[in-house]
Amino acid sequence: MGDRPLIDHDYKTPLEYANTPNMDRLAKGGLVGSLDPISPGVRPGSDVASLALLGYDPSKYYTGRGPLEALGAGIDLGPNDVAFRVNFATVDDEFRVEDRRAGRIRKGASKLAKSVAEIRVESTPGVKSIFKSTVDHRGVLVLRGEKLSRMVTDTDPGDEGLKLVISRATDGSEEAKRTAAAVNEFVKRSHEVLREHPVNQERSNDGEKSANIILTRGAGTRPDLPSFKSMFDLRAGCITGTAMVKGIATAAGIDVIDVRGATGSVKTDYEAKAKAAIEGSRDKNFVVVHVKAPDIAGHDADFKGKVRALEEVDGLVGHVIDEVDIGANYVCLTSDHATPVGYGYHTGDPVPVVIGGPDVPASRVLKLSEASASRGNFGRVRGIDLMPVITDLMGRSKLYGS
Amino acid sequence: MGDRPLIDHDYKTPLEYANTPNMDRLAKGGLVGSLDPISPGVRPGSDVASLALLGYDPSKYYTGRGPLEALGAGIDLGPNDVAFRVNFATVDDEFRVEDRRAGRIRKGASKLAKSVAEIRVESTPGVKSIFKSTVDHRGVLVLRGEKLSRMVTDTDPGDEGLKLVISRATDGSEEAKRTAAAVNEFVKRSHEVLREHPVNQERSNDGEKSANIILTRGAGTRPDLPSFKSMFDLRAGCITGTAMVKGIATAAGIDVIDVRGATGSVKTDYEAKAKAAIEGSRDKNFVVVHVKAPDIAGHDADFKGKVRALEEVDGLVGHVIDEVDIGANYVCLTSDHATPVGYGYHTGDPVPVVIGGPDVPASRVLKLSEASASRGNFGRVRGIDLMPVITDLMGRSKLYGS
Repeated sequence: MGDRPLIDHDYKTPLEYANTPNMDRLAKGGLVGSLDPISPGVRPGSDVASLALLGYDPSKYYTGRGPLEALGAGIDLGPNDVAFRVNFATVDDEFRVEDRRAGRIRKGASKLAKSVAEIRVESTPGVKSIFKSTVDHRGVLVLRGEKLSRMVTDTDPGDEGLKLVISRATDGSEEAKRTAAAVNEFVKRSHEVLREHPVNQERSNDGEKSANIILTRGAGTRPDLPSFKSMFDLRAGCITGTAMVKGIATAAGIDVIDVRGATGSVKTDYEAKAKAAIEGSRDKNFVVVHVKAPDIAGHDADFKGKVRALEEVDGLVGHVIDEVDIGANYVCLTSDHATPVGYGYHTGDPVPVVIGGPDVPASRVLKLSEASASRGNFGRVRGIDLMPVITDLMGRSKLYGS
Repeated sequence: MGDRPLIDHDYKTPLEYANTPNMDRLAKGGLVGSLDPISPGVRPGSDVASLALLGYDPSKYYTGRGPLEALGAGIDLGPNDVAFRVNFATVDDEFRVEDRRAGRIRKGASKLAKSVAEIRVESTPGVKSIFKSTVDHRGVLVLRGEKLSRMVTDTDPGDEGLKLVISRATDGSEEAKRTAAAVNEFVKRSHEVLREHPVNQERSNDGEKSANIILTRGAGTRPDLPSFKSMFDLRAGCITGTAMVKGIATAAGIDVIDVRGATGSVKTDYEAKAKAAIEGSRDKNFVVVHVKAPDIAGHDADFKGKVRALEEVDGLVGHVIDEVDIGANYVCLTSDHATPVGYGYHTGDPVPVVIGGPDVPASRVLKLSEASASRGNFGRVRGIDLMPVITDLMGRSKLYGS
């Protein structure tokens, strides 16, 4: 959720355009408001916004995207490891980036990954590289060894048409220089391994973009999160298809509930996710269900796709509120940020937030939308405030003062 | 104020149920909004919330409830004193707490207090104990002497059916160990002094709970508040029946205006408070009137009692706005926290806030309630923001920047 009115859609947002009877039902009887994931106008990445929504102040706990992706990919990060988020990408002969996602490669990615995983960064003694592909063109790289540092720049130039960037130490330290050297060697070796790879030859024959290099970004060390249990006294589970959210859950000690068909992409199994959430709520008292699809549609500037994704999320919401006793449980619906389809990137707009459950005042909102949320009975709050509100409603929070 | 809709009262809150023509009149022509005493969802004690409402950030200034109660009871706290909030309570022969408030004892409490005040903590050399009873079962204990510390645990187990807790040092320091020893000795001696006390023998004969021990909690040292005058350039007075609010006023250098009949309990003299407020506004430019009754009714889960208390507060409001020229003065009405009658404890809900006075935009709210406040023209603010808003309206605040 979270979009701006579109002139070519009668000044409606995708959420206003979508048919969302279940969200509307939840909204009508519940608290409805606007939520700034970080603070008004701040454009958040999904990582910092998700941390905030789960009650972790990112200004205190965020150490980069890389380690979250690595944890989510199942890599057991040590305290000295430096982790990177990586993409299969397409570069030309002069290392100019043609496609940062290698045509959102899916088929053959695991074969390419196997070859990349064999790379050894030989010129940096005592450093081992661990590579794993996750969803589509995405993957993680971990550098393991003594005297490494996260203070290195990305090799991903961030935009198409720009040249691959040589990683450098940002603080001038020996550790960072050593790390940058290992990164640069790995990226160079990845190109050597990938450019003539049979999978890429096949892709070229089929007129598809060659996944001929690995681009790195988001260097970081493992975040030191106090456990979700110690912070909120909740037995929590998390259902998600994306490595990053799995990583946050892992770092917070939240059980990752694996769901067959939860892909972290547009074609995900909403029904399976809803069932797993209901099932999970039997032995847990807090279950997070994360859906990536509306964000992807936003990035793709795909109005219809976002409407469809929202309607599918609405089905998930309906399944949950039909099965869960809303007279004894709370259901909260929100988004980690806005990705307006007219922009194709994350903006700093507030997003709708809805909380339904026992003893909650009814908003009487008839149709959930960005506009109705901005006038709702919950007012305007910040991402970091959400968990205190939820645990207070659940009667599980501690008194401050006396 | 501050409650949740009640299913057995047609989904109304006590404020929605109450007849409050004066509050409604103030609300209609004024700013109306929701106020989070600390921040959304945080359940505040009255002490931290009252500090915030008066402009003192509790994360910076709060040092425990004990010293506020002690200051309010008229004890001149020194910088090395450690103060505790105490209760007369009822324990059985095995020191299991039967009633943390000794049946909310009123009659005879002062006689019991006199005996307790004679206790000397002899086994902790150089430490003197000062005891004073305040309202009903409540009182304060101050330990005075060298090498004391506030880092000690409560002897009050916090719930009935549990055993008295032996006070311990939380930081392992010698000072804290010495303080804990003095606390434990005092509590033991209080039981010796009280259990055979004639007042308790009489209570037992009347079938009432014996006030046979003193339970301690909220250890703290005097808070170091900058004066209210230095912060806001206001000559302020405070009308309250509770020791804690008197203590905050004392620590802030706000004049405590004694009002005969201001009891800090359900039966308080609203008329006398209103008159004192109007009288006080002649030589002061800021008068706080604190009413405890709706909170007590909330704690007692007493819907009718809360409605009655709110209607009595409404009478007080009516008296004030009839006498004070609202075209030249500001009147602000709010609550330090919600105590929903369906819960009986402080919750993290926002509370209504109203500000009437010159040049303030009219909310056009017809009936003040949690719901109308949540959609009011003042939006959603925090307790700490209230004093800056009030002093700005009064034209007395300083420019930030230039």
